[in-house]
Amino acid sequence: MAVDVAVLDRNVRSMAAAAGQRGLALRPHAKTHKTVEIARRQIEHGAAGLTVATVAEAEAFADGGIEDLFIAYPVWPSPARARRLRALADRVALRVGVDSAESAQALARSVGPLDVMVEVDSGQHRSGVRPSDAKALAADAERAGHRVSGIFTFPGHGYGPGLQHQAARDEATALLEADPQAPVRSGGSTPTAAFAEAGPLTEMRPGVYVFGDAQQVELGTCTWDDVALTVAATVVSRRGDRAIVDAGSKILGADRLAWATGFGRLPDHPDARIVALSEHHATIEFPGGAVPARGDRLRVAPNHVCATVNLTDELVVVEAGREIDRWRVAARGANT
Amino acid sequence: MAVDVAVLDRNVRSMAAAAGQRGLALRPHAKTHKTVEIARRQIEHGAAGLTVATVAEAEAFADGGIEDLFIAYPVWPSPARARRLRALADRVALRVGVDSAESAQALARSVGPLDVMVEVDSGQHRSGVRPSDAKALAADAERAGHRVSGIFTFPGHGYGPGLQHQAARDEATALLEADPQAPVRSGGSTPTAAFAEAGPLTEMRPGVYVFGDAQQVELGTCTWDDVALTVAATVVSRRGDRAIVDAGSKILGADRLAWATGFGRLPDHPDARIVALSEHHATIEFPGGAVPARGDRLRVAPNHVCATVNLTDELVVVEAGREIDRWRVAARGANT
Repeated sequence: MAVDVAVLDRNVRSMAAAAGQRGLALRPHAKTHKTVEIARRQIEHGAAGLTVATVAEAEAFADGGIEDLFIAYPVWPSPARARRLRALADRVALRVGVDSAESAQALARSVGPLDVMVEVDSGQHRSGVRPSDAKALAADAERAGHRVSGIFTFPGHGYGPGLQHQAARDEATALLEADPQAPVRSGGSTPTAAFAEAGPLTEMRPGVYVFGDAQQVELGTCTWDDVALTVAATVVSRRGDRAIVDAGSKILGADRLAWATGFGRLPDHPDARIVALSEHHATIEFPGGAVPARGDRLRVAPNHVCATVNLTDELVVVEAGREIDRWRVAARGANT
Repeated sequence: MAVDVAVLDRNVRSMAAAAGQRGLALRPHAKTHKTVEIARRQIEHGAAGLTVATVAEAEAFADGGIEDLFIAYPVWPSPARARRLRALADRVALRVGVDSAESAQALARSVGPLDVMVEVDSGQHRSGVRPSDAKALAADAERAGHRVSGIFTFPGHGYGPGLQHQAARDEATALLEADPQAPVRSGGSTPTAAFAEAGPLTEMRPGVYVFGDAQQVELGTCTWDDVALTVAATVVSRRGDRAIVDAGSKILGADRLAWATGFGRLPDHPDARIVALSEHHATIEFPGGAVPARGDRLRVAPNHVCATVNLTDELVVVEAGREIDRWRVAARGANT
């Protein structure tokens, strides 16, 4: 799994610049890369802190020296997790998501007072309260003893062709309805990042932008030139206008949204389509029939790079086509 | 990720007995479990050796003391891989798949003479030659200097409701057409295992049967009582007749065949359906509305257990509900 460091750095800088120009704090979601070296680059370029999805990710980045972490998830404090949350809150600036009075109370009981952020549903309909219920939940959380730092939402319904602008509008509307005076109003995803507006938002949390992936290209959120991470695959078999390569779902990940054109893409063969994927085989159709030879190496951009990075222990860092380093994926598997 | 060892052992024994009664050698596919302790149990119960998908898996099991390994894959010997194949062939009984004269010649050139198995396509249309081309490829492989141990196929088109018997018939037909005199005629998958017949086959290679999973239950290949591996998930949020739990695609895997009823199943709530899955959230619909409470722990059976095991570093071994051991997933990530 190779990361072109020049492309990565350009992505890190340009998102930081976009956030800065708009007066938004940038708190990138580190579940995408799970890698301390990349987190440090984001912080060096002005990120206010990092977003993570799990307690275990927060631990990995705290171990890596990142001092400001937001677990953007309605964490439930099972006994073991409560102890770990307490230890984290004692060593870094920590914010934790809540989406119910029960979870706020359970956190207060088993972890103690925390900085919490109220999760609001802006249209994805996963976790999060209705915007109209956000202030009541904030009051519940304060009564339980927490400090409420603000509100957050994830406009995940922007992951569809042509839906980015509307999802960003929904996000802004939901945050304004929830609490326009909340000190932190945090939103954002890579597809909606271009439409994120200071005012409704004070902070954005895109993740995928550091690497890009086939989904983002197919959504129009980035171009092939912006894709920093690819998987090297070798042609092992051929049949008609198809080649079989040795990168399957255990290397690329199996994510495929309904509108995707296949199970990943080939940046160097934009017309090719990955029409089938099993654990160790990807079947690639080459329209026109210019099928690569057995033994040829192809670069594959996965559909969803967050899933892909979680499958590898290290990233091969490449500059001008040459390996210059290896970075450990410190939070690989840190998913609870 | 918990494995009920009593269920596991029963699955290991009953597949060994089924193969033995029919006079078939059993060479289980170890890509499912990637775990040396489970491989040893399979060998103790009479497996002739193991099947693996990659050179790296073969290395992990050779390190674990397994002495007879078949890489059931048309391996292409890139330079680094060629050296590793040579080292493997020098320390264990090794068979390697080929599906073209080019790969047989490339292996001979860069690795030297090997025991090879000719891959035949029996209807999945992935890798493998047409049955009518198998003898010619075997002759090419012998000319290149290899010893041809036999032929093999994977009836992967049996992964659909009601297709198992037909896929097993296709498998038998393809192997008989390819070479009824081949010393080893190897086939099999968990869905088709019940229909595997000595005569056309001499050997079967099921993998998933050790654990079972939601796909196998939905195919009718096993029951909930046969499912040995489940993922523990905690309810973190609720909404109407839905609960959100903290096990997403980074723990369960994202595999979902078109006919599956969801992204996994709940053995203790057979009517519940996992209607949406993201990296750290599964959305579960409970018809009738008896939605578990926040903080409740639920057991989730993944759709495709091979993908799930590849996401974890260790398996929690459970007997009568109590943890008795932890097994390292030695070949996790060993996918090249």
